[in-house]
Amino acid sequence: MTSPITPDRLRTLFRPRSVALVGASDKSAFSATAYRNLVEFGFQEHTHLVNRRGATVHGRPTVTSCSEIDEAVDVAFLMVPQVGTVEAMSDAAAAGIRNAVILSSGYGEAGEAGRAAQAALVAHAEKLDMVLLGPNHLGFANLVDQVPVTSISGLPHRSGPIALLSQSGASSSAMMEFAAMSGNDLSYMVTLGNEAMITAGHVLDFLVDDASTRAIAIFMESVRDPEVFRRAALRATAAGKAVVVLKAGSSELASRTAAAHTGALVGDDRSIDAVFEQCGVIRVDSIEDMLITAGLAAHTGPLAAPGVGVVSISGGACDIIADRAEDAGMLLPELGAATEEVLTAVMPSYGTVQNPLDVTGAAIIDPSLFTSSIIAMADDPRIGAVAVVNGLPAFGEGPWPGQPFVDASGEGAARASAPVVYVSQILQPLTGYSREILEHAGLSYVLPGLKQAVTALAGVARWSQAHHRLKGDDGGAARADIRLTLPAPSTRRGAWSEHTSRRLLADAGVPVVPAVLAASADEAVAAAREIGGPVALKVASRDILHKSDVGGVRLGVTGADAVRQAYEEVRTAAGKVPGAAVEGVLVSPMRSGGVELLIGVVRDPAWGPMLAVAFGGVFVEVLKDSALSTLPVSPAKARELLLGLRGAALLQGARGTAPADLDAVASVVSTIGDLALALGDHLEALEINPLRVDGPTVEALDALVTWRTR
Amino acid sequence: MTSPITPDRLRTLFRPRSVALVGASDKSAFSATAYRNLVEFGFQEHTHLVNRRGATVHGRPTVTSCSEIDEAVDVAFLMVPQVGTVEAMSDAAAAGIRNAVILSSGYGEAGEAGRAAQAALVAHAEKLDMVLLGPNHLGFANLVDQVPVTSISGLPHRSGPIALLSQSGASSSAMMEFAAMSGNDLSYMVTLGNEAMITAGHVLDFLVDDASTRAIAIFMESVRDPEVFRRAALRATAAGKAVVVLKAGSSELASRTAAAHTGALVGDDRSIDAVFEQCGVIRVDSIEDMLITAGLAAHTGPLAAPGVGVVSISGGACDIIADRAEDAGMLLPELGAATEEVLTAVMPSYGTVQNPLDVTGAAIIDPSLFTSSIIAMADDPRIGAVAVVNGLPAFGEGPWPGQPFVDASGEGAARASAPVVYVSQILQPLTGYSREILEHAGLSYVLPGLKQAVTALAGVARWSQAHHRLKGDDGGAARADIRLTLPAPSTRRGAWSEHTSRRLLADAGVPVVPAVLAASADEAVAAAREIGGPVALKVASRDILHKSDVGGVRLGVTGADAVRQAYEEVRTAAGKVPGAAVEGVLVSPMRSGGVELLIGVVRDPAWGPMLAVAFGGVFVEVLKDSALSTLPVSPAKARELLLGLRGAALLQGARGTAPADLDAVASVVSTIGDLALALGDHLEALEINPLRVDGPTVEALDALVTWRTR
Repeated sequence: MTSPITPDRLRTLFRPRSVALVGASDKSAFSATAYRNLVEFGFQEHTHLVNRRGATVHGRPTVTSCSEIDEAVDVAFLMVPQVGTVEAMSDAAAAGIRNAVILSSGYGEAGEAGRAAQAALVAHAEKLDMVLLGPNHLGFANLVDQVPVTSISGLPHRSGPIALLSQSGASSSAMMEFAAMSGNDLSYMVTLGNEAMITAGHVLDFLVDDASTRAIAIFMESVRDPEVFRRAALRATAAGKAVVVLKAGSSELASRTAAAHTGALVGDDRSIDAVFEQCGVIRVDSIEDMLITAGLAAHTGPLAAPGVGVVSISGGACDIIADRAEDAGMLLPELGAATEEVLTAVMPSYGTVQNPLDVTGAAIIDPSLFTSSIIAMADDPRIGAVAVVNGLPAFGEGPWPGQPFVDASGEGAARASAPVVYVSQILQPLTGYSREILEHAGLSYVLPGLKQAVTALAGVARWSQAHHRLKGDDGGAARADIRLTLPAPSTRRGAWSEHTSRRLLADAGVPVVPAVLAASADEAVAAAREIGGPVALKVASRDILHKSDVGGVRLGVTGADAVRQAYEEVRTAAGKVPGAAVEGVLVSPMRSGGVELLIGVVRDPAWGPMLAVAFGGVFVEVLKDSALSTLPVSPAKARELLLGLRGAALLQGARGTAPADLDAVASVVSTIGDLALALGDHLEALEINPLRVDGPTVEALDALVTWRTR
Repeated sequence: MTSPITPDRLRTLFRPRSVALVGASDKSAFSATAYRNLVEFGFQEHTHLVNRRGATVHGRPTVTSCSEIDEAVDVAFLMVPQVGTVEAMSDAAAAGIRNAVILSSGYGEAGEAGRAAQAALVAHAEKLDMVLLGPNHLGFANLVDQVPVTSISGLPHRSGPIALLSQSGASSSAMMEFAAMSGNDLSYMVTLGNEAMITAGHVLDFLVDDASTRAIAIFMESVRDPEVFRRAALRATAAGKAVVVLKAGSSELASRTAAAHTGALVGDDRSIDAVFEQCGVIRVDSIEDMLITAGLAAHTGPLAAPGVGVVSISGGACDIIADRAEDAGMLLPELGAATEEVLTAVMPSYGTVQNPLDVTGAAIIDPSLFTSSIIAMADDPRIGAVAVVNGLPAFGEGPWPGQPFVDASGEGAARASAPVVYVSQILQPLTGYSREILEHAGLSYVLPGLKQAVTALAGVARWSQAHHRLKGDDGGAARADIRLTLPAPSTRRGAWSEHTSRRLLADAGVPVVPAVLAASADEAVAAAREIGGPVALKVASRDILHKSDVGGVRLGVTGADAVRQAYEEVRTAAGKVPGAAVEGVLVSPMRSGGVELLIGVVRDPAWGPMLAVAFGGVFVEVLKDSALSTLPVSPAKARELLLGLRGAALLQGARGTAPADLDAVASVVSTIGDLALALGDHLEALEINPLRVDGPTVEALDALVTWRTR
């Protein structure tokens, strides 16, 4: 079944030609505010008030039914009490209205009865072929076309390139106020409420195609339709529109709090991070960073290179930026030889040519030092954006003494070959006074505050890399590069023994330690002789997953007698496990030295399969240090995961071990991901523990496959 | 020698009765700004212009020498070129002026010649009994008495309880602007420059006694006089005045940058953290957080308990706060039973009584819900401050619809038994409009922005704990609780053998694994027999520090023959080390199992002895995971250090080990710190590696003491 909630359909909702306020009433503050908004934005002519009693409301005549409205209406804003909503929807639908914005609460957020009411609401909407925004929210405002369908007061009139989506109605006023104050003007503001039909992902999908929107800021507590969101986010990043998300619920306490007040199930935070990483979504941790980062992305678009060049007259600011850059992962590349040469020619002898660049007091005498430094920095191929840091007064009158620096920066920005961003030292409002100063220099944008600037630049740089990776991608499903004959359906049940799992891995191209399945002590002895040196004996049974616990494992066994004895012990131990079918005993060479990894694929209930990598031993047990990724995992991505682990030095020759062949390890990890994808929805979990890495050698020593059918 | 730079002396500098601008000139923008500031602040009458040629300057007559001034002058602001400074100082001193503020650059920040010039400057000042602020800075402003002695324009006229100190002149304008904009008004603003004589610590010391100052914000790149700073910071915290420091140089790049532009040596960042922790200094990472945190501390003073109670009508805001609280270490205590009972009585049935508390939409109908919730939260003994989160418009006109919520919050604040802080959802300026709204509710203070609020509250809570710890402390030197007969001076040279070091530890009360120093193979065999079980043999020689490397260690030796052979091998190996004097061979029981710690005391060049704790093996080698503290280390502090390590779970029974007796370990760590203190300046380093911990057992297996005299 195709979803009715397409971008085209949402266009009729978010860009309506006329609006009906259903349940309009003088007694309702919601109604009064919604109506006043429409009047203030000049939409009065296409606003229709519907009141069951047909009274005069807000000083205007009303109709008692939507059918009485004399023009085609795109959106019904339902402000009726919860009990009247279904009937009001029917009335609107009968009048040909196909989109409803539902204010009232008492649905999904209100216990079991509420959830039932919400399900009935959706079923009714589907029957009527209507789509719903809400319920339990405050509507939306289209600032591009100046159509407010919301009960939030104090809407900004200025419009801009950033769409703001919020699951919280109560906080959206503050978010809008910050957007307006900081000069990050909005195209749309949408409160999402319970997302009974239209979710954040659907709105995002609409916005990818909306010409007025260049970046999307989202405050959310949960992702309600994961696949819709993922697909839309991939499409947005590929299209060069940044998605910046303030996702609450990273703490355990917030998860509890969110559950208390919106009925939202807050997903596993680490999976969210992995999915955001996959989609190029920029995650932030404050309202301010959300809007500032979206504004920056809208201003610069994707950066050609991840490095940032910094030019400032304040050494202190340079230091603060360098510190914060390290924290936020913003790259401050060393300057190329050509750049150094140009800068050395313009900088005074007592200055230091480096990034960040302190242009020194010489710029007071010759502000054009800003211009030439900016141009030189922007020409450096490792630099994707130049941040010029300077003062910018928010309040004042008359000409500002620092104007020449801004003018020189503006000239640099006009002539530079990469985006140039004017950064103020503190988080401050973009006032009329500061706008005048910027405009005099031909600038229109300021990134406010050193720490906020670094956070935003780091986020936009990461998003830009994701954009280049995803460009041309249609946001379709993940693809595996593996061709595999799926095991017969009848065998894809429960857990598989190590022996069976080994074969699956080997078929997929994962190196596995050699092993012989011995059915008798004689066979075990022969296998051990063939292998040479000490061997390991392990019981092979799909019914015994924790082999060591039952005495089903013997390690470091040397000599025919010892092998024979070990075989018997293992069989005897296995025989004591009630109902366990034993396939035999695996005999394999003992391995020692090297580093042990754990590679596992598990299924996130919301997001599907996720691959985790970790070092064995204390790293995973004590430090809980692991890295997570969506599938597929490219070899490059696998490398990134491995090097992101705290113990990464173990792969690089720490503690006297041979440096690992990282390409080989990354390739195996990638293959394991592909295998999991190829096994598709049948797979519950796939775990290689350990994957032993010793210099050039990579091999799975043990493996476990479990299927979803039991 | 006592320093001339006492708080009393600095009072004459920072609260002058009259000022001489020496080198006043129409050609100098610095002079023009400094003079304009003095006039604007109404200090014209006590401002004297000194110009060598005696010309009319800034439209006023001048004198050619300070001696011609007809009143006693407290401060000479020297704006003469570098070459004329010494002469100008002599002229000022001859007129009885004892304080100089020196603007010009070309000193410590300008290479070797500059450093020599600065030394000469200081020597000259000492000869004249003058004290100097600067050089290479922009002066200071006393906003309490309204005396600006600075070439920075745009000074705020409003004064408040926060002193701002900055090593960066260029960034101080932005800092002052943010302070004014955010309502965190200043008592003093002091640019520090090269700190040739007066350092941040001296100014801080003066401010501890200044009645108008309740918190001190400092931007610094290096701490120039560590002991002065430490003592002043301890005194400030004890006095209930928070010191909030934005210390640049945490990143490697910033260290390089700072070295390039101020000639400042940026100290080891981890030692700085340890010292700040000792002194209760709050470290922040942005200009905004620095001023907001100082403002909060000035507003609340020390909190009685570290927990914060949060009351809000926005569930979204509650979630964001909960997430940020986890990141910043802000405690959101669960509510006590009594608090829950009171809140349950006032909250609607569909609300959830918890912290953070979402008062729900019921507060729209009955804003007094804010009042009662605030009072109830404040009464909870675990809650030291209540944060009430709400909107606060920065711009607007006429009455604001949200006023009843602010009024209800104000009433709660007035009646609450703990400090109540009004928190706005976004970082915004405190405008005339928002001041009116607050004042209507009897409030005067707002903490702006959710993330900033959490950062500030977490910092103030930590500082408050330090305040309670240090209260009554005079900021004196660290004291050790240990009584020890110091080893004879002649022996306190170079490194000591394990054998000698062991004795020192044992005397100090540190448990040490038993060992016998054997002088012959027979003695070794006898010792091994006495010990029973496998033993370790290690060469004892102060000349052989890396015993394993030369073959001087044999582990797990069992049986008389093997012990005899091991003894001979160790002796033979030691005999091959040229010039090594061998005391014998230590025989001790082999230990296995448990967890190995490394405890070391090393000397930081700026801050003196520091104690480090770490887990052995991968933790210290691969993860570089260690915790640092100044001395002495109380058992409570030792516990905190141990539990702060990433591998802390190892002490709590992870991986099947017996849970350690944490009190015993903490006590040993504390004793090691005391021992190091008792050894005083003679000690270079003291390392116990490993300190073995196995359930109730704690013992040093090896130790190394090195002395500063070689």
